[in-house]
Amino acid sequence: MDMPLVIFTPSGKRGNFPVGTPILTAARQLGVDLDSVCGGRGICSKCQIAPAYGEFPKHGVTSSPEALSDWNAVEQRYKDKRGLIDGRRLGCQAQVQGDIVVDVPPESQVHKQVVRKAAAVRAITMDPATKLYYVEVQEPDMHEPSGDLERVATALSESFDLPRVSMDLSVLARLQTALRKGDWSLTLAVHQDGTDASAKVLDIWPGYYEGGIYGLAVDLGSTTIAAHLCDLKTGDVKASAGIMNPQIRFGEDLMSRVSYVMMNPGGDLEMTKAVRDAMNTLIEEVASEAEIEPSSIIESVFVCNPVMHHLLLGIDPVELGQAPFALATSDALNLTAQDLDLHAMNKAGQVYVLPCIAGHVGADAAAVALSEEPSKSEDLVLVVDVGTNAEILLGNKSKVLACSSPTGPAFEGAQISSGQRAAPGAIERIEIDPVTKEPRFRVIGSELWSDEDGFAQAVGDGGITGICGSGIIEAVAEMRMAGLLDPSGLIGSAVQTGTERCIPEGRTHAYVIHDAREKDGPLISVTQGDIRAIQLAKSALYAGARLLMDEMDVEKVDRVTLAGAFGAHISPKHAMVLGMIPDVPLDKVTSAGNAAGTGARIALCNVGSRRKIEQTVHNIHKIETAIEPKFQEHFVNANAVPHATDPFPELGKIVVLPDVSFNTGGGDQNGGRRRRRRA
Amino acid sequence: MDMPLVIFTPSGKRGNFPVGTPILTAARQLGVDLDSVCGGRGICSKCQIAPAYGEFPKHGVTSSPEALSDWNAVEQRYKDKRGLIDGRRLGCQAQVQGDIVVDVPPESQVHKQVVRKAAAVRAITMDPATKLYYVEVQEPDMHEPSGDLERVATALSESFDLPRVSMDLSVLARLQTALRKGDWSLTLAVHQDGTDASAKVLDIWPGYYEGGIYGLAVDLGSTTIAAHLCDLKTGDVKASAGIMNPQIRFGEDLMSRVSYVMMNPGGDLEMTKAVRDAMNTLIEEVASEAEIEPSSIIESVFVCNPVMHHLLLGIDPVELGQAPFALATSDALNLTAQDLDLHAMNKAGQVYVLPCIAGHVGADAAAVALSEEPSKSEDLVLVVDVGTNAEILLGNKSKVLACSSPTGPAFEGAQISSGQRAAPGAIERIEIDPVTKEPRFRVIGSELWSDEDGFAQAVGDGGITGICGSGIIEAVAEMRMAGLLDPSGLIGSAVQTGTERCIPEGRTHAYVIHDAREKDGPLISVTQGDIRAIQLAKSALYAGARLLMDEMDVEKVDRVTLAGAFGAHISPKHAMVLGMIPDVPLDKVTSAGNAAGTGARIALCNVGSRRKIEQTVHNIHKIETAIEPKFQEHFVNANAVPHATDPFPELGKIVVLPDVSFNTGGGDQNGGRRRRRRA
Repeated sequence: MDMPLVIFTPSGKRGNFPVGTPILTAARQLGVDLDSVCGGRGICSKCQIAPAYGEFPKHGVTSSPEALSDWNAVEQRYKDKRGLIDGRRLGCQAQVQGDIVVDVPPESQVHKQVVRKAAAVRAITMDPATKLYYVEVQEPDMHEPSGDLERVATALSESFDLPRVSMDLSVLARLQTALRKGDWSLTLAVHQDGTDASAKVLDIWPGYYEGGIYGLAVDLGSTTIAAHLCDLKTGDVKASAGIMNPQIRFGEDLMSRVSYVMMNPGGDLEMTKAVRDAMNTLIEEVASEAEIEPSSIIESVFVCNPVMHHLLLGIDPVELGQAPFALATSDALNLTAQDLDLHAMNKAGQVYVLPCIAGHVGADAAAVALSEEPSKSEDLVLVVDVGTNAEILLGNKSKVLACSSPTGPAFEGAQISSGQRAAPGAIERIEIDPVTKEPRFRVIGSELWSDEDGFAQAVGDGGITGICGSGIIEAVAEMRMAGLLDPSGLIGSAVQTGTERCIPEGRTHAYVIHDAREKDGPLISVTQGDIRAIQLAKSALYAGARLLMDEMDVEKVDRVTLAGAFGAHISPKHAMVLGMIPDVPLDKVTSAGNAAGTGARIALCNVGSRRKIEQTVHNIHKIETAIEPKFQEHFVNANAVPHATDPFPELGKIVVLPDVSFNTGGGDQNGGRRRRRRA
Repeated sequence: MDMPLVIFTPSGKRGNFPVGTPILTAARQLGVDLDSVCGGRGICSKCQIAPAYGEFPKHGVTSSPEALSDWNAVEQRYKDKRGLIDGRRLGCQAQVQGDIVVDVPPESQVHKQVVRKAAAVRAITMDPATKLYYVEVQEPDMHEPSGDLERVATALSESFDLPRVSMDLSVLARLQTALRKGDWSLTLAVHQDGTDASAKVLDIWPGYYEGGIYGLAVDLGSTTIAAHLCDLKTGDVKASAGIMNPQIRFGEDLMSRVSYVMMNPGGDLEMTKAVRDAMNTLIEEVASEAEIEPSSIIESVFVCNPVMHHLLLGIDPVELGQAPFALATSDALNLTAQDLDLHAMNKAGQVYVLPCIAGHVGADAAAVALSEEPSKSEDLVLVVDVGTNAEILLGNKSKVLACSSPTGPAFEGAQISSGQRAAPGAIERIEIDPVTKEPRFRVIGSELWSDEDGFAQAVGDGGITGICGSGIIEAVAEMRMAGLLDPSGLIGSAVQTGTERCIPEGRTHAYVIHDAREKDGPLISVTQGDIRAIQLAKSALYAGARLLMDEMDVEKVDRVTLAGAFGAHISPKHAMVLGMIPDVPLDKVTSAGNAAGTGARIALCNVGSRRKIEQTVHNIHKIETAIEPKFQEHFVNANAVPHATDPFPELGKIVVLPDVSFNTGGGDQNGGRRRRRRA
């Protein structure tokens, strides 16, 4: 038999090959996904295969151990040194001798799938822009002079079919030493961003490099900067870290930062430096947590809103503060660490910034689209990424719309009297008894409710420090359900509500959740001002969603995905009571966690996804809330908590909204005040 | 007539076009070389044409003024504002109405030829990598949001068929302001290096930019750094400047700099910093001389030997100091100003470094090959670029060989007792009367010979400071011709030579050219040590040339080109008497001036020449002198001044070499000494 048949599983790909063909070669010719870093030299062990022996009626072959060449010295050396599972062979060493069925185990597949642990609904196919390659390089020859780099490029081209590589000068400066130290063998981290035929060497190691290379997926928010450190070989998240965006000192929200630049020429440079410095700190922190060298972080991906985007890039964001909200650039960017002064990561490190969708709809929204894929949804999905700015996507397979809505920082616990960031001690869950009007709550860091045994011991009065974003949502919704709040958002007085927890607060009232003042602790309450802030925020969010529904010409959506670090913690029921999101069956509301961050991770781990989202973004239809008269209309209409006419069929069993009104006398807050005075 | 005939001169290209077709459009469709920066908007005036009216039997047409559309308002406005030669039209405005003959004046051709002023033997066709483009950009639209950069890219693509441009972040940061200041029109400097389909915006100006962009062609030598500043539009050299290479303090020649690194770890970084700092100084100087902003220097091209090449790039040159003399990289490099810390030039400036030929034959030799084109020569040409290292090329259309030879700095006046750089006061020409043995000479800065009337007034004793490289060559050759020097290179005593100008100098003799000691001036003489230094240098040069001739299997060459700043000033006759170069008819020895610098200028002004020289370098056959035993043999044999057996048929009339010998008694220097003592 001259041309035995080789069948690969699980792919089922098959072909006839001459006796003596290495299995790795056969796999490559058939396009079977079999990994190899060392190019078939028996060094990397990435091409491990599991030959299957016996009769295979399905494939029509009988395969025996004689169908492969004998176990050889290279395989034995590898097994002695690093171990090899029994029955496994190295695909580069085992040669075809007869008909054979060969299984490619998952860990030998280049494009193995990595399932996300958190909110694990989707898998990322590993195909990062930067991969490791091991080559043996021809030694220099005086009679055929050529540079060391040129001989490395030849080796990469011959072993891996890579295009002509270029090399950063900082790497090139180390090349000669590395080649000689590795006795003319070298491992290279080669970057191919897929936009052209070029390949770029980012780092090199003498000989075969056992270590890893890493990438950083960064969600650069107005308030916080969150980063995931991923192993670029396995896709594993090795560490996550978040820090406050230091630009907060220039303004809490986006528009106040734009104003800062308008008022302070050069203010954009200050903010650019602040965020880049913070990134370097974050890189060092996350590397330290994962116990790796920061220099092995070789790639990073950024997602952010347009103002953060411009400030990161060093572009004055002032045009984003006024119509027509023109971006300096909207397309995705392939940059270097040096471009952004990210000196903490690898010197030759690469940076990818996702495209912006529009002047108010940024790369973070693009990342959400990449993660949640509304453009692949059969039913109509509303994706809401809640942050200081809310990114909203609505669509299905046929069409996707996007807008952003200026919710302000209230959902993140800012501008709330007892508000705080989501951190231990913050009230995150709350229930109010509709009869007694007494609250019970849980704080971050404890599983116990405040009325459960052991709560005082576990948390204590000193352990309760404020209310975080998800807590305030629940508090407001519970107050409404308990009849402490009327549909217009007014808090009733103690007399009107029948509980002493409603106390005067200036000219209005506040509802006391927790009072530790006797023990020099805080008074944690929800004030009328807090209610107004939440009303503004939720109205903005709702109005944005409604605007997209109008544009799509629909009255309802099939499902809602809440995204964002905060979105992950919102109770769908309370969000709907509050009127944050349109009504859908409760089981159709899901949380996507930090979808923008997930989108960044996908772009980091799969270079093809970058082209995909660039294309998707071009097809997304953008709606500018700031100039759409209907947005104002929806915004005003959405102010109530909720409108008395809003139907809650799905919540019917749970919610019977009390028909209270605290402003019968005169209409608004003044009415309340007058009544209180009369009381 | 529906499709009148349009004939362009001088190209002779012709075609029929619909009535109403602008001449610029017709030119483009026919591939006629008619410039346009503004894309046909009547702003740039680059597309000026000279319509020709009358009968043209040669072309078979009659052309009348009615054959073009009427002179229009755009043309009148342009003429009023900036002037237009009578009879000229703007090609973008004048439309075809009938058969017409149109001349494209040289200044309207994109690829106009610029003839070098110095040593004007060849023309450079202007086609620089970076060109200016004027575009009108669509204003932003909230309903169709896209970035300003993306709309600029669209305009460039539509008007000039440019590929998708990218933009350095430092330029992008200025884009929005520039677009608004220019009322949505913009001039861009766009770089296309021709290696891929990418285009990069290096700089921008609001509206139509009237200024120029410039490039710097740099010949980075071991001893001096010379730079020409070229206008990238016209090719004119606006300024030239040269400074000493500050690395000299680490070692006079290449190998002593390599040794410095071996002895001082980190010494390469010191030298890299020194040369980059010097480049920044040079850039500022040359810009100041040309009265332009340094930031308008947008491109630079470097040629240098391999050690300078590595030190410029920040690569340890230690491998170049030992066999097999491996370069870190040999191919041409496309870099940025930032890569090389050239902060004095444009921030987004581009740098091209010519390829190296081999470990000892650098980018400077490649530049000489680009300038002198031995690979296009019908006859066999020897090109010698004389410097601290000599680059030698030998070849013709069928084959080109290259080597370098370590001549040392003697030819540059260093290591010579009275030696100095070529500067005012240096003796550059010398003649010695064979009868009286008296010298006459000329110094740089004066046209008079030292025995002519007025010399003392013009120069004076104080104005004579030393001997430069070309002067020492002539001095040694003249000494030999006057019988002051025997074939082995020994200087005779006063008794042996019959002139008191031969004075004792330690154990040997020296020949006094000028003695101003009585007036506290210098004693300028040629010592035995000077003769030895020149012998070593010329032997190295000759041996290199011979080695290539051996390899080519020839006994003689057809012509010799002397290149290098110093090569330009060498007297061919004296060089041949000295035995620096193989014998050829005197009229076959030409000077190419600074051929390496010219090569750099060609690469700067014509991007296509970069691909050409990269290809040529691949085809050049490299000879490594350091390991070739025959080199040593030739070197030893070439030591005499000249060999008694060397024929000088072409110089016969001029030179009858005296049959003197100053070492009859004992052989070498000692013989001379003994005789002197006996005297």
